Amino acid sequence: MLKSVFCGFHCQIGFMPKYDTIAIYGVGLIGGSIGLALRNGKLASRVIGIGRRESTLQQAADCGAIDEFTLDLAAGVAEAEIIVVCSPVQLIAEHVLAVSQNCRADALITDAGSTKQRIVAQLASGTPVPQFIGSHPLAGSDKSGAENARADLFSGCTTIVTPTEKSNEQQLAALTQFWEAIGCTVKQMSPAEHDKALALTSHLPHVIASLLAASTPEELLPLTATGWADTTRIAKGDVQLWQQILDSNREPMLQALDNFAAMFGEFRQALASGDDAQFISILDQGKNHRDTVGS
Amino acid sequence: MLKSVFCGFHCQIGFMPKYDTIAIYGVGLIGGSIGLALRNGKLASRVIGIGRRESTLQQAADCGAIDEFTLDLAAGVAEAEIIVVCSPVQLIAEHVLAVSQNCRADALITDAGSTKQRIVAQLASGTPVPQFIGSHPLAGSDKSGAENARADLFSGCTTIVTPTEKSNEQQLAALTQFWEAIGCTVKQMSPAEHDKALALTSHLPHVIASLLAASTPEELLPLTATGWADTTRIAKGDVQLWQQILDSNREPMLQALDNFAAMFGEFRQALASGDDAQFISILDQGKNHRDTVGS
Repeated sequence: MLKSVFCGFHCQIGFMPKYDTIAIYGVGLIGGSIGLALRNGKLASRVIGIGRRESTLQQAADCGAIDEFTLDLAAGVAEAEIIVVCSPVQLIAEHVLAVSQNCRADALITDAGSTKQRIVAQLASGTPVPQFIGSHPLAGSDKSGAENARADLFSGCTTIVTPTEKSNEQQLAALTQFWEAIGCTVKQMSPAEHDKALALTSHLPHVIASLLAASTPEELLPLTATGWADTTRIAKGDVQLWQQILDSNREPMLQALDNFAAMFGEFRQALASGDDAQFISILDQGKNHRDTVGS
Repeated sequence: MLKSVFCGFHCQIGFMPKYDTIAIYGVGLIGGSIGLALRNGKLASRVIGIGRRESTLQQAADCGAIDEFTLDLAAGVAEAEIIVVCSPVQLIAEHVLAVSQNCRADALITDAGSTKQRIVAQLASGTPVPQFIGSHPLAGSDKSGAENARADLFSGCTTIVTPTEKSNEQQLAALTQFWEAIGCTVKQMSPAEHDKALALTSHLPHVIASLLAASTPEELLPLTATGWADTTRIAKGDVQLWQQILDSNREPMLQALDNFAAMFGEFRQALASGDDAQFISILDQGKNHRDTVGS
């Protein structure tokens, strides 16, 4: 393993970082941005990247997202106080389990997955992993990979943590502090509440953007402008990743689609029947909600 | 009226601008950006702003979008070779008519409205205005007003010109040259083709963005992130303006909504029945279309 590049610096000025060792399993956009935020904030003596491809890990190291890296999960997590599993959502439960079998008994394990209920259910059906509490930082991009990682990706973002009744209060506090340390506001929800809310605020927008892009006839694409481009931007996202998210959140997603369809039907009816006051009130509500959120 | 600020400059270097006088009726985001593009490109000896509120015109002058301004339509258009009517879509026909009654017989009148059929129908039902050929520059913003105008708003953008069977070929060529001079690529369509295409590429995205924003429960707005923000950005747009656009393009808009609803229904069915291959193919098509368009 490489030596921590910050060690000498910390010793010189007598500054003790908040954490000794943090491990990140899967160093793409999210894992890489966590690493950059930790390293830029001098929050950890060392950030260890773990993954399955040396080239990806080397790239993350080149971007400054990690101090060291390894393909050996057991060696990578052995000394870590916190391990963040940033794998694709379908692999998270499997990776959390593998981490738990190799990490310190007092280590905290979390993730950054977009859905939560299935992970909890998968973990509950096997060997218990009491050290795991789920997280979902509400940050992202249509770009992926450590080369697009940003130290400020989490600055001002909300991270939802999803403890269950089995979660330890002290570990929950430690998890909250971890996300706050890299700039997040932390909100607590149950895994089920999380998945239902995120179906509406994140997964539905993705599907709507995809449907709008997909349903635009190819020959009209040259006539699109910034409005279409903004509204469909997230349709650029990785399809496999989104298939996994939708697959793992099917029921809440169907409810979110039906919620959208109800207002869509109302709007169409108002437009068809010349009830301008009704369709204006929907446009008004859309503008109000959008203005509330800001830029 | 104010004296042209460029006159001295042009005389000094013996450079003759392409146009002597261009008039812009309504100097907001679009009219202001046309003025800025003309003035930055030194394409006209003078750009005259016409409007109904002195404060708005003064602001446009302060932004450098116009050389002179007047509240007097007749005086403003009297010497203009080209008059661009940038009024809200419901007022365009009325303003085009007023312009035609006061401008030079050989002047060219165009507009920048988002729909075309109704304007043509309104004009056809009254005194003929042979000098008018409709235009729609496919540029815009969720912001409005001359203070948000940009000289490069039209750079690389497509402008659709919509001649009818009564349009004069020479004037159509002059109109094409005008938009090309400020950086546009020009495409010709009939008013009906234009409205049908734009319902899909511009008006539908606006409605979808509004519906997504409006249907998101208020208490979940703090849980939205960049994906939701991008997908709903244009819902910030001026509601009255959009009411007018939708009102003037009702039938094509209903068809566009039904086109979207068909794919929406297909997606929902695939998700509900576990037909992942089908919903993945829609996500793939969305990504392909979006990637084709670029940033």
